[in-house]
Amino acid sequence: MSGVIRDVIVSEVGPRDGLQSIKRQMPTEVKIRWIEGLAASGLSEIEVGSFVSPKLLPQMADCAELVRAANNIPGLGVLALVPNLRGAQAAFDARTPKITMPVSASQLHSKANINRTVEEAVEDVARVDELRKSFNGSYRPLIEVGISTAFGCTLEGQVSEDWVIELAGMLARAGADSIGLSDTTGYGNPAQVKRLFRRLQSEVGDKAGGGHFHNTRGQGLANVVAALEVDVTTFDSSQAGLGGCPYAPGATGNIVTEDLVFMLEAMGLRTGVDIEKLISTRPVILDGLPGELLYGHVQDAGLPKGFKYA
Amino acid sequence: MSGVIRDVIVSEVGPRDGLQSIKRQMPTEVKIRWIEGLAASGLSEIEVGSFVSPKLLPQMADCAELVRAANNIPGLGVLALVPNLRGAQAAFDARTPKITMPVSASQLHSKANINRTVEEAVEDVARVDELRKSFNGSYRPLIEVGISTAFGCTLEGQVSEDWVIELAGMLARAGADSIGLSDTTGYGNPAQVKRLFRRLQSEVGDKAGGGHFHNTRGQGLANVVAALEVDVTTFDSSQAGLGGCPYAPGATGNIVTEDLVFMLEAMGLRTGVDIEKLISTRPVILDGLPGELLYGHVQDAGLPKGFKYA
Repeated sequence: MSGVIRDVIVSEVGPRDGLQSIKRQMPTEVKIRWIEGLAASGLSEIEVGSFVSPKLLPQMADCAELVRAANNIPGLGVLALVPNLRGAQAAFDARTPKITMPVSASQLHSKANINRTVEEAVEDVARVDELRKSFNGSYRPLIEVGISTAFGCTLEGQVSEDWVIELAGMLARAGADSIGLSDTTGYGNPAQVKRLFRRLQSEVGDKAGGGHFHNTRGQGLANVVAALEVDVTTFDSSQAGLGGCPYAPGATGNIVTEDLVFMLEAMGLRTGVDIEKLISTRPVILDGLPGELLYGHVQDAGLPKGFKYA
Repeated sequence: MSGVIRDVIVSEVGPRDGLQSIKRQMPTEVKIRWIEGLAASGLSEIEVGSFVSPKLLPQMADCAELVRAANNIPGLGVLALVPNLRGAQAAFDARTPKITMPVSASQLHSKANINRTVEEAVEDVARVDELRKSFNGSYRPLIEVGISTAFGCTLEGQVSEDWVIELAGMLARAGADSIGLSDTTGYGNPAQVKRLFRRLQSEVGDKAGGGHFHNTRGQGLANVVAALEVDVTTFDSSQAGLGGCPYAPGATGNIVTEDLVFMLEAMGLRTGVDIEKLISTRPVILDGLPGELLYGHVQDAGLPKGFKYA
């Protein structure tokens, strides 16, 4: 919301990253109610969906409708994921204020995921940048890139840190407005997070973006703390850790927004989010996905006695 | 184990803190097998039980037998919890190498928990110190104190940081060899952890002990990262997060040893622990407590491809 001072931006990715990993489809009407509830809790940025082929991810087919609905929420930063030029065209048609493009640091992951080499994916970013220039300033969408598998890859194993940083430089030159680092695989550790974000900042300056951490090995919030140590101020997370792996209790995919906001506020960092309002939005998820497993701790443990917001 | 270089001591508290919060009783024979398995995985310190009244906690009644069994494991640091002078006498009778005494920073918690004021609990530490002097050096037990509710109390709410530090000084003067900080309630946050451990270190110097964090609000490993930033080198944790709250998936009590060791080793900090051997010990818990909920992430997610120990 405008006028709210925030030390840290919590960027909610549940409607995109959470829902894309769930086969069942949340009805569009429920998605909109969910996004409205998330925004009402004070979240300033929501990734509402993905402009990906509906053949690949039918649960994302309503992305344009969601962008239009979210654009009506005053003060909300609206994002959508865009995998390629065709997705960008659709996103721009829907007047998406900010798109986020994943570019993998791992060649094997890039081929497996989008059937393109890393270099081809960088060229796509440049093409998307060209495309937005055609609007001649009547509409100025932002382009964010998240470097996926930045902390390691399930196919390649370790990913060279030098290469990740070189790639960040290439992406900056290709026209990305900000470049973040994604721990797609849950391989990252706090020492690596500190090191890599420091290098990112010295490579691309104020184009250095935020952290997208997965909690696959329980390291999500630990990695946030490490990133805070080097002044990272934007973090992706998902309400209820949506999109978690059902095989392991607590083994969520994305870090849990509720627990993240609690941590930040307890640390004295303003997020603009009301934790209790945020928690009150959880049942909406179940309206759309009955029986879905919801994760997190704070919603059950409650806020500490005498808890004060930052 | 002797000869192993460790940057961080992971002190396993499952057999005490984990089991004391489970009503069912793990048979002594299984406890011993579990402790042996934990030690064989490379853990250098295990809190095997509590010298508390068996009327209060019947599941801890075999503590002396466990100490004797654990003392036979070469190189293992053996600890037991001691709530008062009577417990210390029993611990010393069993030749416990190191006792850990909880002293609460919260008056209300202290009264509720051990029916003594904080000041009376400090006097108890001094009495236990006197008692050990009677051995005239033939047996030199160490006295560790963990300041419980150091980061907040479910009864009192916020606990004064000045008071926690004053209490640490009192405990050092009372004869404690080391003074650690316990987040009994899961109220702690990383900023507070850094601040309070820094102050502890400047108050009691090399008597400053380790961190005992609970994961009640998902902040356990995040708090460890913060403590590492200020050079804390000992952390309590519990295999499988034993003693977790069954009402919330993943809402463990103690932090999970498996996830903690993974984080530390990934960060380049040597623990001496073999994660796969450690994981192979988990079924022993179920031999003793069939159907018990086991927590953690790494045992299901596996180690990253290409993972290297520190």
